[in-house]
Amino acid sequence: MIIQYEEERRLVKNVLTAAGFYEEDADIVGKAITHSDFTGVYSHGLSRLTRYLRQIKGGVLNPKPNRKKLIDSEVITVYDCDNGSGIVSVNNAYDDTLIKARKYGIAIATACHNGNIGCGSYYGWRASQDNVMCIVTCNTYCFSAPYGGADLLLGTNPIIVSAPADKEYPMVLDMSTTIVASGKIQAAQREGKQIPLGWANDINGNPTTDPNNAYSLLPIAQHKGYGLQVMVDVLSTFLGKAAYGTDIGLYSKLEPENTGFCLIIIDPSKFMPIEEFKANADRYIRMFKNSRKADNVDEIYMPGEIEFRKFNEYKEKGFNVSEKLAAELTQLAIELKAIPEGASFEDLYTE
Amino acid sequence: MIIQYEEERRLVKNVLTAAGFYEEDADIVGKAITHSDFTGVYSHGLSRLTRYLRQIKGGVLNPKPNRKKLIDSEVITVYDCDNGSGIVSVNNAYDDTLIKARKYGIAIATACHNGNIGCGSYYGWRASQDNVMCIVTCNTYCFSAPYGGADLLLGTNPIIVSAPADKEYPMVLDMSTTIVASGKIQAAQREGKQIPLGWANDINGNPTTDPNNAYSLLPIAQHKGYGLQVMVDVLSTFLGKAAYGTDIGLYSKLEPENTGFCLIIIDPSKFMPIEEFKANADRYIRMFKNSRKADNVDEIYMPGEIEFRKFNEYKEKGFNVSEKLAAELTQLAIELKAIPEGASFEDLYTE
Repeated sequence: MIIQYEEERRLVKNVLTAAGFYEEDADIVGKAITHSDFTGVYSHGLSRLTRYLRQIKGGVLNPKPNRKKLIDSEVITVYDCDNGSGIVSVNNAYDDTLIKARKYGIAIATACHNGNIGCGSYYGWRASQDNVMCIVTCNTYCFSAPYGGADLLLGTNPIIVSAPADKEYPMVLDMSTTIVASGKIQAAQREGKQIPLGWANDINGNPTTDPNNAYSLLPIAQHKGYGLQVMVDVLSTFLGKAAYGTDIGLYSKLEPENTGFCLIIIDPSKFMPIEEFKANADRYIRMFKNSRKADNVDEIYMPGEIEFRKFNEYKEKGFNVSEKLAAELTQLAIELKAIPEGASFEDLYTE
Repeated sequence: MIIQYEEERRLVKNVLTAAGFYEEDADIVGKAITHSDFTGVYSHGLSRLTRYLRQIKGGVLNPKPNRKKLIDSEVITVYDCDNGSGIVSVNNAYDDTLIKARKYGIAIATACHNGNIGCGSYYGWRASQDNVMCIVTCNTYCFSAPYGGADLLLGTNPIIVSAPADKEYPMVLDMSTTIVASGKIQAAQREGKQIPLGWANDINGNPTTDPNNAYSLLPIAQHKGYGLQVMVDVLSTFLGKAAYGTDIGLYSKLEPENTGFCLIIIDPSKFMPIEEFKANADRYIRMFKNSRKADNVDEIYMPGEIEFRKFNEYKEKGFNVSEKLAAELTQLAIELKAIPEGASFEDLYTE
């Protein structure tokens, strides 16, 4: 089922409004989810919407949160997100922090009672469009054990860093600090396949290749990735008094995440004329793009470049939603009375 | 040759003062180098001092730089480091940035014409003693190619993140974004040993196990580590207009680095009473330390904990300088007239 960019945005907005979201908030989530699918990050696209809907139903995700600023100083904002959509929380925080960064050059936001922030690169895209750099971290449901440990105390804790360019694509790094996400283990389970050694440990912290015994996801680069996971946790939770480790709800039990995030925006125009910054970024990118390739390599890619290219491709051709996902979303939308009984997937986004 | 903490500090100070450093600057480098050896990071200890001395001799490292602030606003400082010691530059930047962070909660410093910043964890230790968090990145001589590339455009680009604690050790992550440093390849060369697959590529970007063919160091975690390397480069060079890639001098030719750094300090006391922050850090650390261990694992370590423990051990017992390194330093010191002809290593630090 091919769906166009504006159609997917409308779909998400319609469904979330029916689920109780403020229209404005539903639109924000629509943009982020559509960005995700259209940049090829399917894990945070429409497939993730079904989880959000189950979380709303389960009373875990507050559709009409009362977000509060606990601290609001020159360059700091701390939020209580009231268990609302993490996507809306970070987007709102981005708006506030941008104003502060524009004035001072750097500003920081952090939070408690937050949930899943969606596709991390979306914030890098926003920042690039606004000609600023951003650093975003967040903690997540715990799927990972400390290095040498066996208990689930750490999440896939992503790191997002971005910088605008001029004629070249902006650079947007968006990476989890685990080797794979839990979705890949579940896929192997469904398909009855083994997983490679190094993806996960069993419940006692021993390496396993059996997806049914996989308990904790392993960090990238052994102790280095573990160190990154921990410091992402610290940055994302300590300053905003968010939950961590065993204080975070369980994913399997659909408990509230109560996680945090850290967002830092840097405005390069406080350092030099923005044209100069962006011209330098182009020069940097071209130095890489034009450098010698290894044998059998056609092209060197900058962080985030593949996603920008995919976006251009999908924006033209549309994005293919699987029959299964379309049916699931249609059913959930009917339950929410977003569309009447017997309506079709297309009815979810037809104007 | 066992040397005590205060002796090594004095040694470095004496040698660098003889090499033309301001006494105050020599003392700063002495503290950082001694920290390095005494925390077990030998690569940035006395062994690195010999390189600094060769750089001074070669006119690459300016012993009496005229450091200038190019930008000095509420929360931003940008320096021209005039090719002085990077250790002094970052320590000075730390002092200035701490004052700004104490006032506003977050502050940033960046620079051009800088050199090697020494042991990264030292800045994390300083920050922890001052009850602030810090993030430090820097670019370095290029030893690494882009992912899929063959030209040397990236360095070992470290990331340092730290947070203070109360009764527990502070958390201090200090990691390079390559799997190993070039020193390990050189050691294998000297010993006539093969290197593991995945450490380095040859001059055409192909994997190699022959240290003599090793040309580019590989990043941690494939494309993820490459992404981190790039964004460390961007953070460290774009805002301060520092050199990157092929604009950086060659290590082998003892050319000036002209690299940059990015230092961000966050003052938690602008978010909550510092006692509350530190008590929470202790609680976090204990959650990890007291969690289930994997089979055959005795203890779970937090980032930087091993270095703190080593420091306590060496502070008591002293640090063992190899005969070879002691002889080399003695010879260099005699050339610099720090000690007279025929003097011994001990004369370098005896009061």
